[in-house]
Amino acid sequence: MTTTRPIITILTDFGTNDGYIGTMKGVILGIVPDAQIIDISNQIQPQNILQAASVLSDAYRYFPAHTVHLVVVDPGVGSARDPIAMQTLNGTFVAPDNGVLTYIRLEESESIRAMKLDNPTYWLPTPSSTFHGRDIFSPAAAHLASGVPFEKIGSALADIKVLSLPQIAITPTAITGEAIRIDHFGNALTNIAKFRWVDDDTLELQPIYLVEGATSPLRISASHAQVTVGWHTLTGIHHTYTDVAPGQHVALIGSRGELEIALNQGNASETMTIHVGVPVTIQIKP
Amino acid sequence: MTTTRPIITILTDFGTNDGYIGTMKGVILGIVPDAQIIDISNQIQPQNILQAASVLSDAYRYFPAHTVHLVVVDPGVGSARDPIAMQTLNGTFVAPDNGVLTYIRLEESESIRAMKLDNPTYWLPTPSSTFHGRDIFSPAAAHLASGVPFEKIGSALADIKVLSLPQIAITPTAITGEAIRIDHFGNALTNIAKFRWVDDDTLELQPIYLVEGATSPLRISASHAQVTVGWHTLTGIHHTYTDVAPGQHVALIGSRGELEIALNQGNASETMTIHVGVPVTIQIKP
Amino acid sequence: MTTTRPIITILTDFGTNDGYIGTMKGVILGIVPDAQIIDISNQIQPQNILQAASVLSDAYRYFPAHTVHLVVVDPGVGSARDPIAMQTLNGTFVAPDNGVLTYIRLEESESIRAMKLDNPTYWLPTPSSTFHGRDIFSPAAAHLASGVPFEKIGSALADIKVLSLPQIAITPTAITGEAIRIDHFGNALTNIAKFRWVDDDTLELQPIYLVEGATSPLRISASHAQVTVGWHTLTGIHHTYTDVAPGQHVALIGSRGELEIALNQGNASETMTIHVGVPVTIQIKP
Repeated sequence: MTTTRPIITILTDFGTNDGYIGTMKGVILGIVPDAQIIDISNQIQPQNILQAASVLSDAYRYFPAHTVHLVVVDPGVGSARDPIAMQTLNGTFVAPDNGVLTYIRLEESESIRAMKLDNPTYWLPTPSSTFHGRDIFSPAAAHLASGVPFEKIGSALADIKVLSLPQIAITPTAITGEAIRIDHFGNALTNIAKFRWVDDDTLELQPIYLVEGATSPLRISASHAQVTVGWHTLTGIHHTYTDVAPGQHVALIGSRGELEIALNQGNASETMTIHVGVPVTIQIKP
Repeated sequence: MTTTRPIITILTDFGTNDGYIGTMKGVILGIVPDAQIIDISNQIQPQNILQAASVLSDAYRYFPAHTVHLVVVDPGVGSARDPIAMQTLNGTFVAPDNGVLTYIRLEESESIRAMKLDNPTYWLPTPSSTFHGRDIFSPAAAHLASGVPFEKIGSALADIKVLSLPQIAITPTAITGEAIRIDHFGNALTNIAKFRWVDDDTLELQPIYLVEGATSPLRISASHAQVTVGWHTLTGIHHTYTDVAPGQHVALIGSRGELEIALNQGNASETMTIHVGVPVTIQIKP
Repeated sequence: MTTTRPIITILTDFGTNDGYIGTMKGVILGIVPDAQIIDISNQIQPQNILQAASVLSDAYRYFPAHTVHLVVVDPGVGSARDPIAMQTLNGTFVAPDNGVLTYIRLEESESIRAMKLDNPTYWLPTPSSTFHGRDIFSPAAAHLASGVPFEKIGSALADIKVLSLPQIAITPTAITGEAIRIDHFGNALTNIAKFRWVDDDTLELQPIYLVEGATSPLRISASHAQVTVGWHTLTGIHHTYTDVAPGQHVALIGSRGELEIALNQGNASETMTIHVGVPVTIQIKP
């Protein structure tokens, strides 16, 4: 057993009906027969780059650093947007240059290493204009996973495109953000992050979010906080779904350290009519 | 080629939109890079422990005995329910202790071997309260698949939780049970099981279901039986869907030996309005 | 790393809820533990043999030639239709003999090599009547992938069943065909194929489609062509979706060389009410 067996993940909006993903895997196996190929998701909402960026952000750090992450949510296929690759200490990424890599974080020690995928040696012959996932992205990812040096895959890029993201507003008495994703269970994930539990009742917001003028990270008493979502107000911020009775709504800190709104054994986004973009506020009380 | 390449199966209610399953596979590959990771289903109805138990029951015996089956249908995540592992002659199971392993059958020669997953050596560091699938169950399953001895994974449990299941009633003239699952084709699977065909027209019910006072297994003439489902009565119990014309309803013995109600080239649960819990009766005639 | 690691693809109408696919993979891994098992799609519309044939057609040529493609869309399971295998220079296929292999093309140099899967050595013991995917097709595919010689898997067949397909009509001024598949994005794929781009504005139809009396392949000026779909007429045939503005309909040559109707960043089959079977015509202008 080796720890360097090639791993390629796939994240697309292609769905699973049409065989597009299977076709891409065929291309990959023709180049790197021993690859572990893992689907992150192929159910991204069509052309929703922000959702794909968010799902990728949650998943990639749990893979070994030698993994190649292949992301094809590509409304501009065949147009001027570049196909690119980016190599980091925590993974290599192959994607269209449309912002889908916005959430990939570099370590403090590293600077950006990105390539435009303009070397046809690492494409299928005569690529189509409509299925670069098959003809350009999959073979490039497979060649990188099989050991082709990063600098050979194309020509260097100084920077990649990033999305402008919804911001959160922080004062000593309130944090306001919004719902950024509704998951399969109907839980609403927000951009109010990242928190960590200091003790059972004390939440600390990561230091990059400082209240203006403050010198230490913001701390909140979880049991005294109130969370407002549309017309609903929830008291307290909890650790898990079962901290309230079945059928009750709950605000909690999710597995990524973000504020999450849920319904124990139910679907909060339906019962509370939460959709992406709905404002969410934490009222902070001493 | 070795016959002991690690195999891990995954069965959850997580859906495939959010990347949760991909994340779990990343954790697994970090521990056991060579694993064959196979999805049983990630489309269990949210929090439906009984459905997950039933799907697992159908699938696990078709895997090699060294397979580790990872089951995360876990409405009680973060609460008092224990994460557990159970090792049997026909597979090893990692799951919350909520009844999802109810249908796992021990051989006559074996006694239960179960562990509470309370050894943090085999978790991710600092587990969250809301995603034990990623932080506790996946790493435990991966360590077991990679060869960690079962007794090291936690501390011994005397027993595990089992669900109380809908029972079937048997008399010399009728067997009554209910629909327990509607599959993708709309076929209704019942808990009237297990049958085997003695000859083309004779069905025998497995000996654990004996009519009170009887000493030999119940036998039925398939062609003389009548099956009642709600307002519908079907004549005869058949071998396969095409024993009736396309568009006709049919009662048959399914691939698990259970009574199944279907519509040749159609969706019986829609046309007959069958849902889980609907009573189903076989009228036995000599 | 070897280029001959066994590969098995799976294409079914089983859905992903019930664990049927997982069960088949368990059977496969029991026979060929090192297989790369790849899902082409398990979301074929129930019993839609033509759709499965079309999806298979798009995918199989992108896999290495030693791949075994396992196809189980099988409305006739348990009836007189034969389970078969077919070996070609571009892949080996295991399927029911119901037309699902219609689009598999033999090279000019090769003749058909097909087998009826009637050798129980390569089945599971005592196959059911309702789940040949598990009991006959999966073990046969696994044995073929593991190196069992093709001629041992059953007894030779002279021919296999093919579907009668919707034809296209070609005159010097018009080509008429129909929509044959709606993909996940709502793009309508037609049977008007195969085209290749001779230059930026010139399309050539493959030589097997000759206008009656013509001696050279039909060529079309893409910018002068008009495409009619129901009540809609689109001007020009394009290279990719983004050749028109977002929200605009577009006729283009898709990644298989076929005429395709799409909506840039939208769902054409919804906005234009296109379904399978709708006539599509290219009006050819000089």
